[in-house]
Amino acid sequence: MTTALTAPAPAVEACCTPLTSEALSAEDAQRFAQLLKAVAEPTRLRLVSLIAAQENKEACVCDLTEPIGLGQPTVSHHLKILVDAGILHREKRGVWAYYSIVPGALERAAAVLSPR
Amino acid sequence: MTTALTAPAPAVEACCTPLTSEALSAEDAQRFAQLLKAVAEPTRLRLVSLIAAQENKEACVCDLTEPIGLGQPTVSHHLKILVDAGILHREKRGVWAYYSIVPGALERAAAVLSPR
Repeated sequence: MTTALTAPAPAVEACCTPLTSEALSAEDAQRFAQLLKAVAEPTRLRLVSLIAAQENKEACVCDLTEPIGLGQPTVSHHLKILVDAGILHREKRGVWAYYSIVPGALERAAAVLSPR
Repeated sequence: MTTALTAPAPAVEACCTPLTSEALSAEDAQRFAQLLKAVAEPTRLRLVSLIAAQENKEACVCDLTEPIGLGQPTVSHHLKILVDAGILHREKRGVWAYYSIVPGALERAAAVLSPR
């Protein structure tokens, strides 16, 4: 959790009023749109999906470039957007950074679209 | 349901494999990103939310321009994107078209992000 002190408040935590329970304020709409935009991109959806599919639920860039079919700088760029949005957690261990899905992040995003 | 025969298959119906249950194919990622992009925009989120907040769960453009604070052509443009994505249903009655949320559309989108 080395980035916790300096990272901005992730959009995923700031969003909690379900879309259909009351008229969304302009501010909440902005926050939730920002969160959805982070995942509304094919490569980023595949990255989240590939990380979730790993046996230990985490992956380094080195695991992801080949199945995604893109270079390391591009994959790292997409991973950073997902980290900034609060969807992925990044942990540096030795040479590589390892990425895992923040527990509850996708569930919280889904819950804004449709309350359970 | 006057648009059903000519409309393209809505992205929301084509998506059903949850993101985290197996590695997403490039094709599924493309489809789901398209669906999320339709809602990943502050004005469109507010439109969906405003329609859901109506007493009879439907609204015409005339109900939406004032609370959204945008002109009718802009609101109509955003509504069309939501209809094309399969999130809103459009029904012409007299002078106005009435928009309602397609039953289950938001639930299906949420279920791809996070299986229930």
